Amino acid sequence: MAKQNNSFGVALFGVGRAGTIHFGNIIQRPRLQVLYLVDIFPKNCEQLLEKNYVPPGRTQVCSYENSQKVFDDENVSFVIVTTPTDQHEEIVRRALDAGKAVFCEKPIAVDHTRADQLFALSEERKVPLYCAFQRRFDPSMARIHDEVIQGEHGKVHMITTFSRDSPLPSMQYLKISGGIFHDCAVHDIDMVCWIANEKPDSVFVRGTARHPEIKAMGDVDTVAITLTFPSGVLATIHLSRHATYHYDQRLEVHCDKGMLQCGNEAADIVQTFGSNSVQGALPHFSFPQRYRVAYAAELDHFVQVLSGECDRLLVTRDEVNLVSAIATACEESLRTQQPVQFSL
Amino acid sequence: MAKQNNSFGVALFGVGRAGTIHFGNIIQRPRLQVLYLVDIFPKNCEQLLEKNYVPPGRTQVCSYENSQKVFDDENVSFVIVTTPTDQHEEIVRRALDAGKAVFCEKPIAVDHTRADQLFALSEERKVPLYCAFQRRFDPSMARIHDEVIQGEHGKVHMITTFSRDSPLPSMQYLKISGGIFHDCAVHDIDMVCWIANEKPDSVFVRGTARHPEIKAMGDVDTVAITLTFPSGVLATIHLSRHATYHYDQRLEVHCDKGMLQCGNEAADIVQTFGSNSVQGALPHFSFPQRYRVAYAAELDHFVQVLSGECDRLLVTRDEVNLVSAIATACEESLRTQQPVQFSL
Amino acid sequence: MAKQNNSFGVALFGVGRAGTIHFGNIIQRPRLQVLYLVDIFPKNCEQLLEKNYVPPGRTQVCSYENSQKVFDDENVSFVIVTTPTDQHEEIVRRALDAGKAVFCEKPIAVDHTRADQLFALSEERKVPLYCAFQRRFDPSMARIHDEVIQGEHGKVHMITTFSRDSPLPSMQYLKISGGIFHDCAVHDIDMVCWIANEKPDSVFVRGTARHPEIKAMGDVDTVAITLTFPSGVLATIHLSRHATYHYDQRLEVHCDKGMLQCGNEAADIVQTFGSNSVQGALPHFSFPQRYRVAYAAELDHFVQVLSGECDRLLVTRDEVNLVSAIATACEESLRTQQPVQFSL
Amino acid sequence: MAKQNNSFGVALFGVGRAGTIHFGNIIQRPRLQVLYLVDIFPKNCEQLLEKNYVPPGRTQVCSYENSQKVFDDENVSFVIVTTPTDQHEEIVRRALDAGKAVFCEKPIAVDHTRADQLFALSEERKVPLYCAFQRRFDPSMARIHDEVIQGEHGKVHMITTFSRDSPLPSMQYLKISGGIFHDCAVHDIDMVCWIANEKPDSVFVRGTARHPEIKAMGDVDTVAITLTFPSGVLATIHLSRHATYHYDQRLEVHCDKGMLQCGNEAADIVQTFGSNSVQGALPHFSFPQRYRVAYAAELDHFVQVLSGECDRLLVTRDEVNLVSAIATACEESLRTQQPVQFSL
Repeated sequence: MAKQNNSFGVALFGVGRAGTIHFGNIIQRPRLQVLYLVDIFPKNCEQLLEKNYVPPGRTQVCSYENSQKVFDDENVSFVIVTTPTDQHEEIVRRALDAGKAVFCEKPIAVDHTRADQLFALSEERKVPLYCAFQRRFDPSMARIHDEVIQGEHGKVHMITTFSRDSPLPSMQYLKISGGIFHDCAVHDIDMVCWIANEKPDSVFVRGTARHPEIKAMGDVDTVAITLTFPSGVLATIHLSRHATYHYDQRLEVHCDKGMLQCGNEAADIVQTFGSNSVQGALPHFSFPQRYRVAYAAELDHFVQVLSGECDRLLVTRDEVNLVSAIATACEESLRTQQPVQFSL
Repeated sequence: MAKQNNSFGVALFGVGRAGTIHFGNIIQRPRLQVLYLVDIFPKNCEQLLEKNYVPPGRTQVCSYENSQKVFDDENVSFVIVTTPTDQHEEIVRRALDAGKAVFCEKPIAVDHTRADQLFALSEERKVPLYCAFQRRFDPSMARIHDEVIQGEHGKVHMITTFSRDSPLPSMQYLKISGGIFHDCAVHDIDMVCWIANEKPDSVFVRGTARHPEIKAMGDVDTVAITLTFPSGVLATIHLSRHATYHYDQRLEVHCDKGMLQCGNEAADIVQTFGSNSVQGALPHFSFPQRYRVAYAAELDHFVQVLSGECDRLLVTRDEVNLVSAIATACEESLRTQQPVQFSL
Repeated sequence: MAKQNNSFGVALFGVGRAGTIHFGNIIQRPRLQVLYLVDIFPKNCEQLLEKNYVPPGRTQVCSYENSQKVFDDENVSFVIVTTPTDQHEEIVRRALDAGKAVFCEKPIAVDHTRADQLFALSEERKVPLYCAFQRRFDPSMARIHDEVIQGEHGKVHMITTFSRDSPLPSMQYLKISGGIFHDCAVHDIDMVCWIANEKPDSVFVRGTARHPEIKAMGDVDTVAITLTFPSGVLATIHLSRHATYHYDQRLEVHCDKGMLQCGNEAADIVQTFGSNSVQGALPHFSFPQRYRVAYAAELDHFVQVLSGECDRLLVTRDEVNLVSAIATACEESLRTQQPVQFSL
Repeated sequence: MAKQNNSFGVALFGVGRAGTIHFGNIIQRPRLQVLYLVDIFPKNCEQLLEKNYVPPGRTQVCSYENSQKVFDDENVSFVIVTTPTDQHEEIVRRALDAGKAVFCEKPIAVDHTRADQLFALSEERKVPLYCAFQRRFDPSMARIHDEVIQGEHGKVHMITTFSRDSPLPSMQYLKISGGIFHDCAVHDIDMVCWIANEKPDSVFVRGTARHPEIKAMGDVDTVAITLTFPSGVLATIHLSRHATYHYDQRLEVHCDKGMLQCGNEAADIVQTFGSNSVQGALPHFSFPQRYRVAYAAELDHFVQVLSGECDRLLVTRDEVNLVSAIATACEESLRTQQPVQFSL
C-alpha cells in the first residue's frame, strides 16, 4: 500500500448507510483523501460529494464495472468495503491481491470459511484486513472492558447485553441481511467474548417474531441468547430488530466487587418537568449517532496500524472466526431448540 | 376468624427478618393488634416488644410448644407465618383448622402438592390463605403490570428481570433455603407470568457458582433463565445470590410501542461531584428497605380482604401452583442442561 | 412533663395538613399515645380517628374552649401545635405554663419578640420548646450538612436552594400565611445558615408576582434572595409559591473540592421509553410525601430529648431568632429594593 | 468577500484555545480552506498543521507583522479572530476595511463604544461581523429557548444559570481577562436575555473571592447576579472561576406550565456500582468538549450567512451592545453593593 507524506489515499466501495459514515469521517481528516467512490448509483456519489462541498477533481466516482483502475492506482493506500454483503468477498480479494489494505464491514464474506481464506490471503500479502467491530472503540464499552480485564472488579459473574435496532430495517434488507445472528448478534457476541476473555463452551437461543411481516418471512425479530464459559462466567444477549424508542444498546457486567453498566446516551440534555411527568430525550436515533465516536476511532486505529503508530489491529482473525462460529451455532440452537455445545 | 369493631387480632409465628418487617407494619396500624409473638427464642420477642415500646400486657410471647392457646383464642383473627420453611405447613394447617385466616411467606409448604392441599383446606374452611408475593404490591412494578395489561404499550416482545440479593445470605441459611429457584426465582417467575398474563410453555436454565463456598455445596449462585410463552412472548430472568453493590431488583418490558423499566431506587438523593467522578447513593441495602411500601401494602390488602373492603386475594392458588411448578422445572433444566417443555 | 414506662401522652392542637402528618406518625409509634385532638372542627377529628381505626376511648376530641382539661391532664407529656399561626402563642404559653413540652410548627408566634418570650418561658419552666424545621432531619440534606461541617469538601464557595411549592396554596391561606418570607423562606434561610455555620451580614431580595390573584393581593410569588456571610460565603435562595410539576426542593453547595446536590426524589421508579421521550415520574406531590422521613425523624428526635436519650434539641432559640430576623430583613429589602446590612 | 464554487478561504488570527477549536472545525469542512494561520508563535502553527496532517502548501503561517498579505488576498473570504482581547479591534477593523467578513470571539473590542464602532463599520462595508456567543448554538439550550419563545410552557417566572469554569484559568490570564463579567458573565447574560426576550431593568451583584490568589488580585471568583425585567421575569446567574468537578454549565427556566432544565452531560455513559456508591463520569472537562457541537454549528451558521443560505446572523449588534452594557452595570453593582437601574 502506498502512503505519501504520512497521508493516505482511500477508495470507498458502497455508499449506503455505513459508507456515508466512513465518508464523513474521511473528509474530516486531512490525512486521508477519498480518491474514489465506487457504487452502483454514481449519482448518489456525486450528490454526496456536492452536499459536502468536496472540491471538484479531488474524488473520482466510478461504477463497479470500471473499478479496476482503483486497484491499479498506486495512490490508493486502502479500500473501505461497505457494499451489500454478497459483494464483500470479491472486492476484498481484489484489493488484497492489489496490495491494498482493507477495512471491511462485517461479515468479510458470506460464510466463515470464505472469510478465513481472505484473512489467510491478507497474511500472505502482508496487508492488513480489518473486520469492523466498531463497538470495541466505543469509549464507554472499552473502559468497561479495560477495567474488567485489569481485574479491578474481581471475578466476572455475568455479562449481559441488550441490542435493539432502530429504525426497523426494511423487509427488503431483512431478506438479504444474513439473519439476525450474523447481522446483529455478532457485535454482542464479540463484546461478551472480549470482556469474558475466553471462548464459550455452549450456547442456547430462543427467538420469536413479533412483527407480522417478519413472522411471515419465517424469521425472528426478538432473541434471547445464553452463553456459558469454561471458567464459569455466564452471559445473556437480548436482541430486537426494532425498538420504537430509538437505538438501544446496553452492556452490563456483574463482578465480585460490583457492577458496571454502559447505558444509552440521551440525544440531548434537556429535562422537561411538565404537569404529568419529567421528560427527557430518547436515546440516539440509530447507530450513526450512537457510535459516532466509535466509528471515527476505529478508522483512526486502522490508519495508525497502516502508518505504524500502532502495531497490530485490535480485532484479530481468530476473534472474527470465533464470533462467526458462535453466530452459526446460534442459528442451529434456534432451529433445534436445544443448546449447542462446542469446543472452539 | 374474629374481628371486633373492624379491627383485627394477629398472631405472628417466627420473628426473623420477614417477621420483624410484618411486626413493624402491624404496630403502625391501630386497626391491628399483635396478640401473640410465637418463636423459639422468646427473649428476642421480648426485646422486640421493648425496643418498640409496646405497652406491657398488649402482646403475649409464647413458644411453639405452648402455641395451642393462640389457635384457641377467638380474638385472633389471623396468623402470619414467617418461620423457617419446614414449619410452615403445620402452622398453616392448625391455623386454618382453627378457622384463622393465614398470611404465609412463600413457600406455603416444602412441596407443591402439600401447598396445594393447604389451599384446598383454606377453600374448604372458607378462610383466606395468602402466599406472600410482595413485589405485586410494589407501586412501580404494579404500574408497569397495569399499563401492559391494559394494552397501553401494545404487544409484549420481551420481559426481563434482574434479582441480585444483598447481603450474601449465610451458608447456614443457603443450605436450608430450598434452593435458588424456590427461594428466589419464584418472585421473578411470578412477576414475568403476571405481566405476560399467560402460562409459559418452556424453560431453559443455566447456572454457575462464583462463590467458592456455594460451589462447594454443589449449588449455584448465578442463574440465567429463559422462558417462552405460547403467544410468542420471551422472558429472561437473571439471578444472583450476592450483589456487593446492595439489593438489585430490576424489571423491564419491551413492547410494540416502547419500553418500561423499573430500576433501583437510590438510598438517598445526594449527588457528590468530586474530582474524579459523580457519586450517588447505592440502591437500598436489602429487601426490607426496597420493598418497604410493598410489604405494608400487601398487609393492608390482606386485611381489606378480611374486612370485606376488597373481594378477593390478589395472589391466587392457581398462580402459586404455577410458579412452584416452573421453579421445579428450572431445577430440572439446570440439572439436565436441556430445556423443559411443559403444558401447565 | 409526665412520662410513664418511657412512653408519652400527646395532645395535638390543630388537625390540618401538618397536624395530620404528625397524627399519622404518632399512631405508628406505640411509645406515643394521642390523648387529645383539639380543633375547631371536632367532626374532622372524629373522622380522622375512625379512618385510622383508632380504638374508641383511646383519644378524646375537644374544642379550644374546652381545652383546659388537656393542660390539667398529667398524662399529657407534650403538646403539638399545628393550628393557624395566630393561635400559636396562646397555646404554647398555656402549655409551657402547665409544664408541658411543646412541639410547635413555625413560627412560634406572629413576631420575633413574642416568639423569643416563649423561648424564655420555656427556659424558665425547664421544658423544651421545639420550633419545627423538619428539613434538618431530611437524611440527604443532613448528610450534606454533616459532610460540609466536617470539612470533607473544603471551604464553601456558594450555597444555593430552590423551594417551589406544590400545590398552589389557596388565596385564603396566602392572605393569612404571614408572607412568603416567614411562611416559606425561613426553611431555606435556616438550611443556608446551618450549612454556612455562621450568621449572614447582608441580604438582598427581588420578587415578582406571576399569578394574577397574588399580584392583585400586592404580594409576590417568585423570589430571589442573595445572602452574604462575613467569611465570604455567598448564598442564593429561589422561591416560588407554585410549581406545576410538583414539589421542588433542591439544595446545592459548591466547595473547594467539589459540589454536593440534593435533588428531588421521583415519586416512583418507572421510566417509560415512548416514541417521543423518556418519561419518569414527577417529584413528590407536596411536603407530606417529600418530607415523610424528616417529619418522623424530627418527632423521634423531640421524644428522645424528652426521654433523655438525646441531650438537646437540634434547633435552638438563637437559630430560630436568627432566621426570623433575616426573614424580616428580606421583607424590608423587597420593599426598598435595597440590600439590608445587619449585624446579628 | 470572495467565495469560489461555494467554498471559502479563511484566515485564522490567534491559535490559542478557541483558535484551535475553530481550526479543528475548519479542517473538517471541505467547504472551508484555512489559507492563513496568524500568530505570534509561528512554530505552534506549524505544529498544529503537522499534527493534523494538513498537506504542505495548503496553509500559510505568518506573524502579525506580515499579515497585510492576508487582507490583500482575495481568496480570503473571512477572518476568524481569536487573539487576546486587546488585539481584536485592530484586526477586525483591518479585515472589515479589506471587505472580509469577520467571526470574532467576544468581546469585539475592549469597550462597548469601540465595539459598536466596529459594528457600524461592518454595516457600512456591508460585510458581516459576528460576535461569538456559541451557547446560542447548543442544541439543548436552543431547544429550551425555542420552546419558551413559542409559548409552549406559558409565562416565564424565573430563569437561572450556573457557569462554573474548569480548569481554573491561569493567574496570568485572569489579570488580562477583562474581569469575570466581560469574560464569563456575558454568555449567561446573553442566554437570560435571549430567553426572556426583553431587556432587563435592573441588576444586583454580589461577589466573593475564595481563591487566595484571586483575592490578592482584588478580584472575585464567585458571583451571584439578580436581574429583573419589566414584564416581571426574574433571573439569577451563578458564576465561578473554578469548579474542581469539571465544567459546569446549567440553565433552567421555570414557567407557568413547568420547568425546563439543561444539565451537564457526563463525559461517558458508564455507571459503576461499587461497594460504597454508584459512580458516573464527571461532566466534560472544559468548554471545547462541552460546546463541541455548538462551536461547529456557529461556524456553519456564519458560513451559511456568507453563502446566502441563511439570511441574517443570529447574534445582532443590539444584542451584543445590550450584553456589554449589562456586564458593565454588573461591575458597578459589585463595586457599590447597590442595585443598578437602567433603561436600555
